[in-house]
Amino acid sequence: MPELQAGDFLTSPGAGKPRTLGIIAGGGTLPGQVAAAAAAAGRRVFMIGLEGFAEPLMLAPWPHAVLRMTAAGRILAALRAHGCQDLVLIGSVRRPSLLGLRPDAEGARILARIGISAFAGDDGLLGAVIRVLGEEGFRVIGAQDVLREVLAPAGLLTRAAPDDLALADIRRGIAVARALGAADAGQGCVVQQGLVLALEAAEGTDAMLARCAALARPGPGGVLVKLPKPSQERRADLPTVGLETVRGAAAAGLRGLAFEAGGTILAEREAAIATADAAGLFLLSLDPKSVLEGSEQR
Amino acid sequence: MPELQAGDFLTSPGAGKPRTLGIIAGGGTLPGQVAAAAAAAGRRVFMIGLEGFAEPLMLAPWPHAVLRMTAAGRILAALRAHGCQDLVLIGSVRRPSLLGLRPDAEGARILARIGISAFAGDDGLLGAVIRVLGEEGFRVIGAQDVLREVLAPAGLLTRAAPDDLALADIRRGIAVARALGAADAGQGCVVQQGLVLALEAAEGTDAMLARCAALARPGPGGVLVKLPKPSQERRADLPTVGLETVRGAAAAGLRGLAFEAGGTILAEREAAIATADAAGLFLLSLDPKSVLEGSEQR
Repeated sequence: MPELQAGDFLTSPGAGKPRTLGIIAGGGTLPGQVAAAAAAAGRRVFMIGLEGFAEPLMLAPWPHAVLRMTAAGRILAALRAHGCQDLVLIGSVRRPSLLGLRPDAEGARILARIGISAFAGDDGLLGAVIRVLGEEGFRVIGAQDVLREVLAPAGLLTRAAPDDLALADIRRGIAVARALGAADAGQGCVVQQGLVLALEAAEGTDAMLARCAALARPGPGGVLVKLPKPSQERRADLPTVGLETVRGAAAAGLRGLAFEAGGTILAEREAAIATADAAGLFLLSLDPKSVLEGSEQR
Repeated sequence: MPELQAGDFLTSPGAGKPRTLGIIAGGGTLPGQVAAAAAAAGRRVFMIGLEGFAEPLMLAPWPHAVLRMTAAGRILAALRAHGCQDLVLIGSVRRPSLLGLRPDAEGARILARIGISAFAGDDGLLGAVIRVLGEEGFRVIGAQDVLREVLAPAGLLTRAAPDDLALADIRRGIAVARALGAADAGQGCVVQQGLVLALEAAEGTDAMLARCAALARPGPGGVLVKLPKPSQERRADLPTVGLETVRGAAAAGLRGLAFEAGGTILAEREAAIATADAAGLFLLSLDPKSVLEGSEQR
């Protein structure tokens, strides 16, 4: 993909007026934040709410259509009808199984172009979807390019800081999350006193955290580590932490969260940090490489 | 460790009469099976039932003492008092955290010899325990050396066999389980139609399976893959599947289980296979390397 400058999305080559930003929206509040940021910058917005994922209250303020994820023909037609060329894919979706799909005619044609092999692993599928969107004349840009402030800034974001035991757990969690990521199997884990309590796969971070209270050992609590996979499609699928993650971590007795600076979307940032501070948790936004090499940020 | 021949445990160098076999017993029925096999071979047995793990009904038929896992001094004294030199460590335990330990005086001394670093990861800890037991004059042997038939034999054990989709899921599961194992983070996963539904860490296989029904996609069900870690301490911690695993897999809508031939304990074998046959599940005991190379056993 071409490198984007901040704000680059606001200009369209050879056009005086910025074209409408298309937002293909899953669950959560992030799609609305992206829309608001684009609108504040003077850009028109059109949303495709993915049926079963996008929340009606989030969609309501914006011009939108609600369509099934696999109704590719209708999605592309709606985007074209509203003059969208730049697209943001944002919000949580439950990845479909190949055999659970009910594509429309255009969707079946696109599925054939994506190929069955893309369904083995998350990244292949998203990468293929973005490639096909490009072939169809769209340009997929990252939510982080529209909404700079959604990316977690580097450093310690809370009053609480990890002690040496927590830093050791973070290092172990980074090594484990990298191994998961290299196998395209997941991106999060919980480590307590060196023991891997839980590994995240299809259940998502909130469900993984929900089982950790029962698995925890006596003594100091564990840490949640989330990292992008090496092959992660950064335009559409960055790891996300937010208010619910902090609440879940506190309920599980964890002592903090660690995630990659610049590679993680921190949703509802102010509320997330305030809740972490109130619960005594740390939020550490770090460079995983420097932590593994022992020169951690504190 | 010296290579053991089958039946080698029955003879003790320089002694006319085989010494008592010490069994350090966790949960489940396997410790009783090991005891029965040793007794049937003419060997006396003494069990240490680990408090909170070993089941009283399993211990009842055998001479035994119930002791805390960390009461190392009392455990070693009891084993010596009963003339045990060969030891089997078998049955499920919940791995303690370093800071949750309440060692006795001897336990604290032994903990110092094991070293804190052993608590980062399962394998280091068990390996260190076995090393210390060796230094104390004991010889740790694998349950599989006493009870040959507990190891899963190679091949397809059921009437149902994996189809091509299930074989593809098995290959993906092997790759994921190996990545988990290399990071010493877990040994099991569930894969459906190429998607990793669940990864097993401290919750254990039964709890992992319990969440899979809710995570499953429409269409053909997934497979459970369990493999020993590369660094697995094969004398004390082989992956185990059994009747409960088969029941859990059936309840989760899975189509079968795959595990390493010769590297997996198959507990309650007849009941597990009969239950799998009744539910239409396959049990495939395989050589992971040959499956990854495409020459799978069918």
